[in-house]
Amino acid sequence: MSRKLNLALIGAGRIGRLHAETIAFRIPEATLAAITDLRADLAEAVARRCAIPRVAISAGEIFQDPSVDAVLICSPTNTHAQLVIEAAQAGKHVFCEKPIDHSIEKIDRALKEVEKAGVKLQVGYNRRFDANFARVRKAIISAEIGRPHLLHIISRDPAPPPISYIKDSGGMFLDMTTHDFDMARFLIGDDVTQVYTAAGVRVDPQIGAAGDVDTAVIVLHFASGAIGTIDNCRKAPYGYDQRVEVLGSKGLIATENCYPNYAVISTADSVRRDLPLNFFLERYAQSFENELRAFVEAIIKDTPTPVTGADGRAPVVMGLAARKSYDEHRPVYLEEVGAAEGTATTRSL
Amino acid sequence: MSRKLNLALIGAGRIGRLHAETIAFRIPEATLAAITDLRADLAEAVARRCAIPRVAISAGEIFQDPSVDAVLICSPTNTHAQLVIEAAQAGKHVFCEKPIDHSIEKIDRALKEVEKAGVKLQVGYNRRFDANFARVRKAIISAEIGRPHLLHIISRDPAPPPISYIKDSGGMFLDMTTHDFDMARFLIGDDVTQVYTAAGVRVDPQIGAAGDVDTAVIVLHFASGAIGTIDNCRKAPYGYDQRVEVLGSKGLIATENCYPNYAVISTADSVRRDLPLNFFLERYAQSFENELRAFVEAIIKDTPTPVTGADGRAPVVMGLAARKSYDEHRPVYLEEVGAAEGTATTRSL
Amino acid sequence: MSRKLNLALIGAGRIGRLHAETIAFRIPEATLAAITDLRADLAEAVARRCAIPRVAISAGEIFQDPSVDAVLICSPTNTHAQLVIEAAQAGKHVFCEKPIDHSIEKIDRALKEVEKAGVKLQVGYNRRFDANFARVRKAIISAEIGRPHLLHIISRDPAPPPISYIKDSGGMFLDMTTHDFDMARFLIGDDVTQVYTAAGVRVDPQIGAAGDVDTAVIVLHFASGAIGTIDNCRKAPYGYDQRVEVLGSKGLIATENCYPNYAVISTADSVRRDLPLNFFLERYAQSFENELRAFVEAIIKDTPTPVTGADGRAPVVMGLAARKSYDEHRPVYLEEVGAAEGTATTRSL
Amino acid sequence: MSRKLNLALIGAGRIGRLHAETIAFRIPEATLAAITDLRADLAEAVARRCAIPRVAISAGEIFQDPSVDAVLICSPTNTHAQLVIEAAQAGKHVFCEKPIDHSIEKIDRALKEVEKAGVKLQVGYNRRFDANFARVRKAIISAEIGRPHLLHIISRDPAPPPISYIKDSGGMFLDMTTHDFDMARFLIGDDVTQVYTAAGVRVDPQIGAAGDVDTAVIVLHFASGAIGTIDNCRKAPYGYDQRVEVLGSKGLIATENCYPNYAVISTADSVRRDLPLNFFLERYAQSFENELRAFVEAIIKDTPTPVTGADGRAPVVMGLAARKSYDEHRPVYLEEVGAAEGTATTRSL
Repeated sequence: MSRKLNLALIGAGRIGRLHAETIAFRIPEATLAAITDLRADLAEAVARRCAIPRVAISAGEIFQDPSVDAVLICSPTNTHAQLVIEAAQAGKHVFCEKPIDHSIEKIDRALKEVEKAGVKLQVGYNRRFDANFARVRKAIISAEIGRPHLLHIISRDPAPPPISYIKDSGGMFLDMTTHDFDMARFLIGDDVTQVYTAAGVRVDPQIGAAGDVDTAVIVLHFASGAIGTIDNCRKAPYGYDQRVEVLGSKGLIATENCYPNYAVISTADSVRRDLPLNFFLERYAQSFENELRAFVEAIIKDTPTPVTGADGRAPVVMGLAARKSYDEHRPVYLEEVGAAEGTATTRSL
Repeated sequence: MSRKLNLALIGAGRIGRLHAETIAFRIPEATLAAITDLRADLAEAVARRCAIPRVAISAGEIFQDPSVDAVLICSPTNTHAQLVIEAAQAGKHVFCEKPIDHSIEKIDRALKEVEKAGVKLQVGYNRRFDANFARVRKAIISAEIGRPHLLHIISRDPAPPPISYIKDSGGMFLDMTTHDFDMARFLIGDDVTQVYTAAGVRVDPQIGAAGDVDTAVIVLHFASGAIGTIDNCRKAPYGYDQRVEVLGSKGLIATENCYPNYAVISTADSVRRDLPLNFFLERYAQSFENELRAFVEAIIKDTPTPVTGADGRAPVVMGLAARKSYDEHRPVYLEEVGAAEGTATTRSL
Repeated sequence: MSRKLNLALIGAGRIGRLHAETIAFRIPEATLAAITDLRADLAEAVARRCAIPRVAISAGEIFQDPSVDAVLICSPTNTHAQLVIEAAQAGKHVFCEKPIDHSIEKIDRALKEVEKAGVKLQVGYNRRFDANFARVRKAIISAEIGRPHLLHIISRDPAPPPISYIKDSGGMFLDMTTHDFDMARFLIGDDVTQVYTAAGVRVDPQIGAAGDVDTAVIVLHFASGAIGTIDNCRKAPYGYDQRVEVLGSKGLIATENCYPNYAVISTADSVRRDLPLNFFLERYAQSFENELRAFVEAIIKDTPTPVTGADGRAPVVMGLAARKSYDEHRPVYLEEVGAAEGTATTRSL
Repeated sequence: MSRKLNLALIGAGRIGRLHAETIAFRIPEATLAAITDLRADLAEAVARRCAIPRVAISAGEIFQDPSVDAVLICSPTNTHAQLVIEAAQAGKHVFCEKPIDHSIEKIDRALKEVEKAGVKLQVGYNRRFDANFARVRKAIISAEIGRPHLLHIISRDPAPPPISYIKDSGGMFLDMTTHDFDMARFLIGDDVTQVYTAAGVRVDPQIGAAGDVDTAVIVLHFASGAIGTIDNCRKAPYGYDQRVEVLGSKGLIATENCYPNYAVISTADSVRRDLPLNFFLERYAQSFENELRAFVEAIIKDTPTPVTGADGRAPVVMGLAARKSYDEHRPVYLEEVGAAEGTATTRSL
């Protein structure tokens, strides 16, 4: 492919705008040919900022454009699966924001269409492309720490989102923890067969009133016998807390949070530093760029994408199982909520 | 009490010898009047080293000595409960190594005698007296990090003990994890009502053949709704790994391992430091001294000991519940294995 | 200024190319109108990469272009002063790479033309725009650490440059240390009156044969009485070492190196991490972007540039004094090599 | 020597009492036979605390006691040299607190007597026995970091001593810096030939009025060509700051301060830890024990002491040269103040 890859963007919200800037300013191999959003003003603002030549009135218009090689689906979650299907049917490669959907059935329908169309699909689990987590993955692949035994993921937000967001989020396990479920599979390179959830409402009773939890520990039983824990909270007063540890047969690898600077101030009060990078746009800025570069490269070189449809399906299964475990107060096998199907599809592990 | 406190030591093994040296060389307020061990040669060696004037032929001889104020029970675990009973009946204050016993019934009988006799009992959960964990406890008591939500305890040995030891140990949950169960109650200042265990044999199949596990994650449900995890492994190739983290409503406190030195070496290969202090005698040296000082002080000042009989009972209940959870693959309430009784006794939390 | 700022680039070497990419991809408020280099192929390659519409045959052609608002001078050091003069006479604002020149006389002539023309001049001491050093500066300005007493700058390269480079460099004090001299003035916000140099050839005898040193400590006497040390070496086997510490009347601020990731690996050998970011293009990537943004902003808002001509002159005086101190083996006042003149010009401190 | 080594203590002040406790409670191979102090009440208090059987009325009484193998001289500095002479003449081995004296002539007379008598002399530069600095020394001896190029010693007290103390101290360079001069020689394993001092009064004008400085940087030129800097301040508001760094041809070794605990607290304000161990009794507690153990061992095994008379002489020469450099504002060769003589005596480097 000697010409630039032609991309189109569906959804001009926060994450859509971020991806638009990345394509426009950071990835010379690709260009944005069109953008669309139900709110035309948002689409137009992004188009101006990023010199996107066309604001389409609908996703359909984009799918019909033969010059578009691939689409980035950044619309609300409940539209993802249908848009993936339509994009695939139109022969477009697809980058879809996470999660694909909250329904395994809808995900499976979408993945079937992708498979049938033979297009590439990458799901937006950007954290895989963070230098810290990539380093952990490398330590495991290279056996630098031997065979993994125990995984611990700490993933806490600086503050809970608005209750309105929570109500539409599908619950913490499908929303916030979905990244951690993906991280667990990515780091260990293995599937989870069973989960156990201990959770509660510690941060805000309104979250409980909305039927959700805000604090949780989820135990992961991997197929290999390794054991993982995910430690989630909607509120870490000191900021965004994103760390992992893996103990293996030969050693341990553990990552630290990222900071705006590495200055330490010692006074009569304490030895201290500034707070970690506050939230995902800062903390994962580079990973968002890296994931799009990987997507573009996979298309140009015609190689598999690094986060496949099966990789996008698994965290949803895990999220549903985690919720079921919490509701029924017992360990839950992933098969109980639909794992079997997913294992049939191609996976990147 | 103007004279020195007269102590006697039952058991001259590794930990007995350590306590003897501490009393002899570090605690001017107390003196060792007598020592006994089934192996007289061991008792005599310690007596010489620490200038203990008398080697008694039995614990009974010690209990009958009216000049002895208190005894340190450092004999094998299966003799603890009976010795506690005899000591209490003889009116001696008791410092008993952990665990008191593996049987809740035997523990309860011993604690009843202690209560009846009105003597003081302190159980050897020394880690409470470590500066790092004490700092964490202080942060919680003082609300420096607010109300605790999530606890994570990492507790890993540098290498597994001999299989012969494992066979007599009562299993990892009653042996190794017992310290972590105590640490969980100590730090959070709350009782655990229920546990869930994910565990396996990852380090050595012989441990599995002996009916035990060597790697485990135990989820703790606290009465307050806080959630804890204990992360255990019999083998951390880099040495003794002893860390805790507590997330509270106002912040996080996390401890690091302790090192023989704080030098960092940077070469063309890596930026590195030496391994952590390798095992408990080095890592917890100061805590062993501190716990005996606290015991001596509690007697001299007639105040409650900082680790009571109920504190010694709880980790055994938790260990039994953790094993039951592993065996039955479900969360287990502590009541199922005997928690109710224990809550009737005095506790230090 | 509602339109974009029109810049032109003189010099298409490593640093010129970097600045071109920054303007093209990161700073929407400015655009590159032209580029020139004695090697037309280099200029053309950068023009293609960054969509620069015109490759000029000479700097003169650029100066005559009325549409050019400002120029970036990235040519060899010995051409800087003359180009600054010509740019100023043509009414262009100037961003000039460091050092302006090795001759105080030439610098002073250039600064005089800048002053006469009333154009803005910013000198490329990019490290001022690094988040770590900016944080140190902030701590001093805000009196977070009180009045500064002692400064220590560690500045070591991963490996020495080729001997051919060394021969043309003006010597380590005018080449490598020039950044540290600027950093010292920037952080403390004060002028240095006197220096003492201890130096030698430790890394490579060829450097000595070329009349230069490769290892040095330079003591700085600040006007305020504060004392600084700069610790330089042409070879730090572990990579680029760039740290500072300032002790003040209320506390200490110290910065750490920057790393490609913040993972720590613990094995039976050591507790280690990967090496720091290896060299200035990685370590200071963000600062190069920040300095150009500041230059563009100073022009657009018509405010003073953050690194003035006087700021560009002072490190050269310090470098000459450091060399004189080394040669004569005594402390040297900056006045001895031309400080007096400089203090008459505007300075940013 | 099958019996315990018989020691006697001259001086029952703070450091004398510390050494008494160490001998009494930590070093089973030695015992304290006698103690003396001009203030008999102090001597008696220490004797009681440490079960020392005899309180002598004078040092002379101790020197005449044939059962005394060695003496610890912990009296005021101006009495050290004369007591060393008398002890040596009486055939006693000598542990002498630092500095031996402020006069090179008096030191040389004392060392000559020690040499003549053939007794062992160890000078109390305890920091050599600290685990951190010992680790740095080991890295240099083992060539882990290659040949040393640059040394940086940071040595700052939490707060200045009373002015009365300062007046009798011999000045900062003979008092506080003396430890750092010794550390420099110990770490690099080389002699310093020349020093340059930049210093001032930053902390308290009364210190200046007393003719002393409170803040200093001292550049050390080693015989090998390595360069060192000592960074001193009488006041580090965050506590006792004791760090070193050595850059060698193969790498860097750097030590951190020591802390009462290794807990990190993250709140909405900062990521922080408690202050370092506040002062030398806490920070160097273990090193005080180690140095006496080394002294006792050197006598028992008849091996050289690890800190010889020449090692005790050198820091005084360096201190005098540092002051001369400050007074005359120029680099000063150690020969100018008496180095030549010292090199004739045995040295430990």
